[in-house]
Amino acid sequence: MTTDPNRFLSSAAGQMKESAIRRMGALLAAGRDIISFAPGYPAPDTFPWNEFSQIAADLLGSREPGVLQYGPTRGYRPLLDTITSIMQRRGIATRLEELLVTTGSQQGLDLVARVLIDPGDVILVELPTYVGAISAFRNLQATLVGVQQDADGIDLDALDATWERLRRDGRRVKFLYVVPNFQNPTGLMIGLAKRQRLLEWAERRDVLIVEDDPYCELYFEDSASEADVRPIKADDRNGRVIYLSSFSKTLAPGFRVAWLAAPPALTAKFEMAKQAGDLLTGSLDQRLIYEACRRGILERQLPLLRAHYAHKRDVMEQALRRELGTTVSWPKPTGGFFLWLTLASGLDADKMIPRATEHGVIYVAGEAFYVNGEGQNTLRLSFSAPTPERIDAGVARLAATLRAESEALATGASAGGQGAS
Amino acid sequence: MTTDPNRFLSSAAGQMKESAIRRMGALLAAGRDIISFAPGYPAPDTFPWNEFSQIAADLLGSREPGVLQYGPTRGYRPLLDTITSIMQRRGIATRLEELLVTTGSQQGLDLVARVLIDPGDVILVELPTYVGAISAFRNLQATLVGVQQDADGIDLDALDATWERLRRDGRRVKFLYVVPNFQNPTGLMIGLAKRQRLLEWAERRDVLIVEDDPYCELYFEDSASEADVRPIKADDRNGRVIYLSSFSKTLAPGFRVAWLAAPPALTAKFEMAKQAGDLLTGSLDQRLIYEACRRGILERQLPLLRAHYAHKRDVMEQALRRELGTTVSWPKPTGGFFLWLTLASGLDADKMIPRATEHGVIYVAGEAFYVNGEGQNTLRLSFSAPTPERIDAGVARLAATLRAESEALATGASAGGQGAS
Repeated sequence: MTTDPNRFLSSAAGQMKESAIRRMGALLAAGRDIISFAPGYPAPDTFPWNEFSQIAADLLGSREPGVLQYGPTRGYRPLLDTITSIMQRRGIATRLEELLVTTGSQQGLDLVARVLIDPGDVILVELPTYVGAISAFRNLQATLVGVQQDADGIDLDALDATWERLRRDGRRVKFLYVVPNFQNPTGLMIGLAKRQRLLEWAERRDVLIVEDDPYCELYFEDSASEADVRPIKADDRNGRVIYLSSFSKTLAPGFRVAWLAAPPALTAKFEMAKQAGDLLTGSLDQRLIYEACRRGILERQLPLLRAHYAHKRDVMEQALRRELGTTVSWPKPTGGFFLWLTLASGLDADKMIPRATEHGVIYVAGEAFYVNGEGQNTLRLSFSAPTPERIDAGVARLAATLRAESEALATGASAGGQGAS
Repeated sequence: MTTDPNRFLSSAAGQMKESAIRRMGALLAAGRDIISFAPGYPAPDTFPWNEFSQIAADLLGSREPGVLQYGPTRGYRPLLDTITSIMQRRGIATRLEELLVTTGSQQGLDLVARVLIDPGDVILVELPTYVGAISAFRNLQATLVGVQQDADGIDLDALDATWERLRRDGRRVKFLYVVPNFQNPTGLMIGLAKRQRLLEWAERRDVLIVEDDPYCELYFEDSASEADVRPIKADDRNGRVIYLSSFSKTLAPGFRVAWLAAPPALTAKFEMAKQAGDLLTGSLDQRLIYEACRRGILERQLPLLRAHYAHKRDVMEQALRRELGTTVSWPKPTGGFFLWLTLASGLDADKMIPRATEHGVIYVAGEAFYVNGEGQNTLRLSFSAPTPERIDAGVARLAATLRAESEALATGASAGGQGAS
């Protein structure tokens, strides 16, 4: 008799859910002509293919055992040194014992969750926030509480009021999770003065800050500068901030190489959790990334990427204005991969997905990024991967979708009304 | 004021420990001339360097976006199909919805732990067993209970007696973890008849089996055959067995590509846990492994590897007999990477480590593999990575260590007695 495996699940596993973004990925894999604004993929035509080819040939030609062998959990030492330099350029002085190479920043989030979260602990997040963080924290059975954002990022008054309310309820806040630069999903930045005040707040309320910073190097030079992206961690004198960053958006995500920086005692625990989690980040991957840094390829890429994504942002904004005028609104992205669209109230981006796929376009419905069930009339558009022509065409398809949906709503026959979920 | 970060640790993190094997790795990195029998590294001179060079050139030359892009959490589809064929050759019929590519088998163990273990659940393991599994299960706060082994693997009477005792105590056994082929650390195999009875036992007692099988293809043709390594999973009709295997020992570990097979409902949960854990296994890595299989390189490697490691096993056994005669004993390894040495009682392999490093040789003390604190006079020797000459020299150094330690013990001045821990 076949065993019912659900009887064996842990209580954490009983609550695990599939991510909305990854579900979109599966839909795409089905292979119809769909223009995808859904996953935040970097543009593959910007990858330095020839350079990676040369590096791979050099590394594998060397027959140096470490290239394909097991290695230290902490990371490939020359890569750790390189990361120290990168951190320095961001204004962050890091010692080796604070650093850990991670298998993508997603692993960094997971390690943070495992080392810091007990079931029922409260984690504060922005409304909306990155879904991968939501999943990682929920898998450890955290209670996620959202704090609204202003145009310059998280609302500090709301933040403190939330903290006080939670304390009155006897709940412990372990950390605040923020994406200060070109946030996923909104593209918003936290203003510099606000970053300082955030750090002071964390001190006063004895809360850690988890600062997730994959996009800082991708500021758009017409509207943001290197000074604007200065990490909160740069001013952290007391070990309040756990900082995560990655090579996925600037070199390539398929390598799964990222890092974290934290007080040494925490990094030691993150390393132990990683040891039992996957032993080490891929050896060849770490060396490919290291060599791309050492040979100046990363540095050469950055201005090209800024221009590349700024141009795509322009194309998307122009198309949105042309196709949708004032029926939608969004904050202008000043860096990163994402544009956050708010539709007329009454429209439901999630329920509209079947109609959108019919029209050959796909996005991520905003609701998935909200820990409080809001955001029905919002959606995330990634302008990073499609070509400018596809962005133009995709926005036209999105506009057609919205027109059809509004019409259907007016006549009482929306896709949602037909029972799609 | 600097924050004390320990106040923020989860209860799981409070209990995390560094693995004994990885600690050895750090010791080695210090760079003295030490012959290492410690980590179970495959021999890097057996890696198909030229072939991987060619494959990397082809993949990166193709500029196919998927080579460096994000991809599905489940795994690269052609690689999943290849794994299905590999499983078929092992006698296991698998459907796609049962398979998941993992970032090394260590991730497989971690996913198993997260999806199945609630704090306090009992996991049964062999005495001794793989330390990486111990860490993964302990990180989820499992209670590990050991079952002794005979020459043909786990003792079934002891297993059932243990289960009954635990049931009387009101404890729930979630699963039994076994490494049936050339176990890490003992090199033992579970006999074929015993595998069948193990499966029947799991049915009767309603326990899952986690079968960890990284070494099955590395049987030594003088003492074991393909028939002997038939996985327990091959006879699993009811979804009792979660099966893990890997390309790390047969192609190269630096790629971090392995897989698991389980009932679809469990695999779906493993995938969700992986999604929040690292999103996906490296894209280039998965394609390099896939191409190595497709081009017949894995198949060509296997007989070479069997001969290579069998020869090293011979060299180690001869050296041990020559240098240590009957003062030590071990079961003859019939495959895999490890030889399990039992010293005269009274000797403590862990306390002897400082003396061993003085003599220029290192191993893993057996105690780390025991969940019940036994094994002081045992140690694990990996014959896989060192050259035959280094194996010879290393065993001579080990013999000198043992002579010095015995002498010191006799005169009451062992390294242990001097306060080493």
